[in-house]
Amino acid sequence: MLTLFGNLESGNVHKVQLILRRLGAVYRRVEVSQVRGEPRRPEFLTLNPMGKVPAVRLEDGDVLSESGALLYWFGRGTELWPANERTRAEVLRWMFFEQYSHEPALAVLRYLRRFTAPSEAAAARCIELEPKAKHVLGVLETQLSQSRCIAGPDCSIADLALYPYTKWAPQAGFDLGPYAQIQRWLALVEEQPEFLPLGQDGAAQVLSFDEYFGVV
Amino acid sequence: MLTLFGNLESGNVHKVQLILRRLGAVYRRVEVSQVRGEPRRPEFLTLNPMGKVPAVRLEDGDVLSESGALLYWFGRGTELWPANERTRAEVLRWMFFEQYSHEPALAVLRYLRRFTAPSEAAAARCIELEPKAKHVLGVLETQLSQSRCIAGPDCSIADLALYPYTKWAPQAGFDLGPYAQIQRWLALVEEQPEFLPLGQDGAAQVLSFDEYFGVV
Repeated sequence: MLTLFGNLESGNVHKVQLILRRLGAVYRRVEVSQVRGEPRRPEFLTLNPMGKVPAVRLEDGDVLSESGALLYWFGRGTELWPANERTRAEVLRWMFFEQYSHEPALAVLRYLRRFTAPSEAAAARCIELEPKAKHVLGVLETQLSQSRCIAGPDCSIADLALYPYTKWAPQAGFDLGPYAQIQRWLALVEEQPEFLPLGQDGAAQVLSFDEYFGVV
Repeated sequence: MLTLFGNLESGNVHKVQLILRRLGAVYRRVEVSQVRGEPRRPEFLTLNPMGKVPAVRLEDGDVLSESGALLYWFGRGTELWPANERTRAEVLRWMFFEQYSHEPALAVLRYLRRFTAPSEAAAARCIELEPKAKHVLGVLETQLSQSRCIAGPDCSIADLALYPYTKWAPQAGFDLGPYAQIQRWLALVEEQPEFLPLGQDGAAQVLSFDEYFGVV
């Protein structure tokens, strides 16, 4: 059985749940929590030296990580990885935009506002990130005013990549009311086959970190 | 002729020069400087609404951006985009790692130390980023102790993606002396056909922002 390492509060982990559910894959999930520092525990670093979630142990025992690479790996052979090469480049363009510009603004703001104690440093970081988050939401709104899905008329792994932290924008401090196209598109993604709402677990079995790694 | 938008101080732009040179492509470069805020000027936003460099105007007039997507687009059909699907996923894994974890630590430290005036906020950010940069260099050193190139025995677009900001690590404050495998690998990338050293221009023609966009 496939094993997904990660927690339900991570949008990057949720992307992998979205593609696994879409495939109808049966998988177990091992709870690996950033808040508890588990991605940097030695047992996990042996498995993924990058020290990050999500990671997936594939059927052959090999481990693959980075949500973008996992979306590519599981998306191949489905209509979510388009046949046209130029469209593929566009899909990757939006996935890199998500990881480099979108997630570091929206996910970090959400993290600061939801999971950390208020501090002067956190407040300063929020002030720095707010215009960046506003910019990326504006970029998405513009794109979605011209395109049904993120990278063209048909949904792709780029839509799964951009969904979680866009949907969670209110938790990052952004009301999506003024973003009509983003709202339309969120609903479209939610209509995808086997869609799994944020925060829900799609795993057949869940193990704690200590259970899986046999920590006594 | 292909047109590359960006400046010589950007490692992300340099990656695109590396792949274009490798292909033997003839291209012009339009100077678009982050320091001068040019990626957010209205003329450029019309071309790339993401407001970032690199961007490339392809032969058909279409614009593609994000260094990772550009490496994919130009790398297809060369030995730098491997035939094996599992290796492709591994290449993308390291490219996403570079954009999400490696570049935001090393490139931002370099930017703070080289292009910004000293301030209390900058000093605090450096203290926050230093362990992250050390972690990613450690991840690379470990990977390169087990693998000739980043994603396997043969060089790929992942090596071009990771080269610039690893090579510039000393400018970010990190002596590469203790990283023997990284040093071995940097030399290997530098032996690649048509390699272009950092800071050098591979363009057949260079235009200023105002020249290209016809700003009076």
